[in-house]
Amino acid sequence: MKYCSECGKGVELKIPDGDNRERHVCSHCQTIHYKNPNVVAGCLPVWEDKILLCKRAIEPRHGFWTLPAGFMENDESLEQAATRESIEEANANLEVTNIYTIVSLPHINQVYILYLAKLKDLNFSAGVESLDVQLFTEEQIPWDNLAFRTINFTLKHYFEDRKNNSFPVHHGTIEKNNRYQ
Amino acid sequence: MKYCSECGKGVELKIPDGDNRERHVCSHCQTIHYKNPNVVAGCLPVWEDKILLCKRAIEPRHGFWTLPAGFMENDESLEQAATRESIEEANANLEVTNIYTIVSLPHINQVYILYLAKLKDLNFSAGVESLDVQLFTEEQIPWDNLAFRTINFTLKHYFEDRKNNSFPVHHGTIEKNNRYQ
Repeated sequence: MKYCSECGKGVELKIPDGDNRERHVCSHCQTIHYKNPNVVAGCLPVWEDKILLCKRAIEPRHGFWTLPAGFMENDESLEQAATRESIEEANANLEVTNIYTIVSLPHINQVYILYLAKLKDLNFSAGVESLDVQLFTEEQIPWDNLAFRTINFTLKHYFEDRKNNSFPVHHGTIEKNNRYQ
Repeated sequence: MKYCSECGKGVELKIPDGDNRERHVCSHCQTIHYKNPNVVAGCLPVWEDKILLCKRAIEPRHGFWTLPAGFMENDESLEQAATRESIEEANANLEVTNIYTIVSLPHINQVYILYLAKLKDLNFSAGVESLDVQLFTEEQIPWDNLAFRTINFTLKHYFEDRKNNSFPVHHGTIEKNNRYQ
């Protein structure tokens, strides 16, 4: 950020009075511009013993497999965001049931919130952000070609929980490493 | 938003190619400026049969009682955000244990994520954003003077769940009404 979005004049990085962090502050109109983490909402769509994955048609991680998920938008609930992303990426007709994983990614300022969801039918197909959409059994999951560690975290828990037919919320933090996300 | 924060020129509201929502787009450098919901992280601090509330020293809802919570910052996890807010607002020495309530507030573009937490000692006191900090039994809760409906939602669930000594994650959406938040 170089310019104030309210008045167009230059901003400077400084700690505002009463604050303890550097913010972009307008040197002209004094507006303080905060930056905060984004929520990525999505779901794990289930059909019988299979789960649905999307092959990414966009960067980052083009060509890798992911669960349908994306940035939550203003004016919507988490549930609506998760459902919308499933339609956009997989044209999936599903019902989100309960929140399943919540993962903080402090190094990229994101919080993933993924639901469990039931596919209502098999009329899914690749949306514009996907190259392909497929159902996978546990044995078929492309573990080495998953797009993000949040997806790995969620799938590992799912197959473990499925043995006990109990799906509590899992919560974690994934720190920066030298790999993707 | 009136000006581009990257180049200082004017922005216009339009739907970018491949998108389906209006965004602020710079007419000069073409930067798309996204706006997304903020996460409010906090906790419900417990001491024996009491819970800790803070009386707000700031707007909105100056003078009303709330749980320690505030905007999650970049570079931190949800857990760190909840702990930091408890220190800032109540100088509370506590350990957050598990995520307890998750509430979407689409009309104000916020998602509340509140933890259960154990107070480690009674050395709490009002931080700069609080007029007062006190412990309350269930009977003492100032129900008519709570700051936000998210706080009401969380406390109601807590006292109900305490009867069964079982504290599952509660998830909901609070829509706009004619009252506060």
